Amino acid sequence: MINKLYLDDLTIGDIFVNNDSYEVTEEEIIAFAKQYDPQVFHTDPEKAKETFFNGLASSGWLTAAISMHLTAKAFPIAEGLIGANADLKWPSATRVGDELTIDITIVDIVPSKSKPQQGIVTYETVTKNQHQEIRQICRANILVFRRPTE
Amino acid sequence: MINKLYLDDLTIGDIFVNNDSYEVTEEEIIAFAKQYDPQVFHTDPEKAKETFFNGLASSGWLTAAISMHLTAKAFPIAEGLIGANADLKWPSATRVGDELTIDITIVDIVPSKSKPQQGIVTYETVTKNQHQEIRQICRANILVFRRPTE
Repeated sequence: MINKLYLDDLTIGDIFVNNDSYEVTEEEIIAFAKQYDPQVFHTDPEKAKETFFNGLASSGWLTAAISMHLTAKAFPIAEGLIGANADLKWPSATRVGDELTIDITIVDIVPSKSKPQQGIVTYETVTKNQHQEIRQICRANILVFRRPTE
Repeated sequence: MINKLYLDDLTIGDIFVNNDSYEVTEEEIIAFAKQYDPQVFHTDPEKAKETFFNGLASSGWLTAAISMHLTAKAFPIAEGLIGANADLKWPSATRVGDELTIDITIVDIVPSKSKPQQGIVTYETVTKNQHQEIRQICRANILVFRRPTE
């Protein structure tokens, strides 16, 4: 088990990876979409063939959720991942059979001027499938605390 | 039923609303988090009291997914909502009992120079609860097609 990380433990350029992958099934793509993104290219494999995606495609929000699942395991920030914002790009759509993995790079660290015990960390998570096709790039800002001094 | 919208039908400043709301339950917050964002402030109402959030908070990715659910019904783009990217801000966390609603504003429209039959539309979705607390601001770019001429 990796120790929990504080602001003091992070350096720009640090990389975190998750050695697990997450296999995306037709069932999960359809179930997620029926609940949260009910569009035909996400819910109906047959009708999806006649759309822009030429077949069933995952909702980008499912790609985001799976990427979070992988990130939570790979990036053990002490007080948890408290996100203020996130910028997402979806260069291509996640498909049935994708085995998604992530890597995380620390992009910026800005200690707070008014609250010396905390700072904002910017990190970029790249989500790829087993063929190295990039399914998502997510750049997020999180609140990270300094190691308690007591 | 609203007619399906093409690029020609949209103007900067147009507003779309969803008159439905989406009630967020403890069950959904926990179930989503166990699958996609397994952190104690999203999965355990008791332990969450001792965290930054002072109680159970929704994953921001669930707020995003619910906002998509509401957007899909309110914003009837002809070929579907084909997202290239999205920038999310979470000014506050979604909580149990929130009744989320959205409004969508068209922020920009850029016809493609190389592909005259399509363009990129930027829209901003603001997600609020019943007390007008803003839970999410999402600015997204989607691909939108012109009305077929035949």
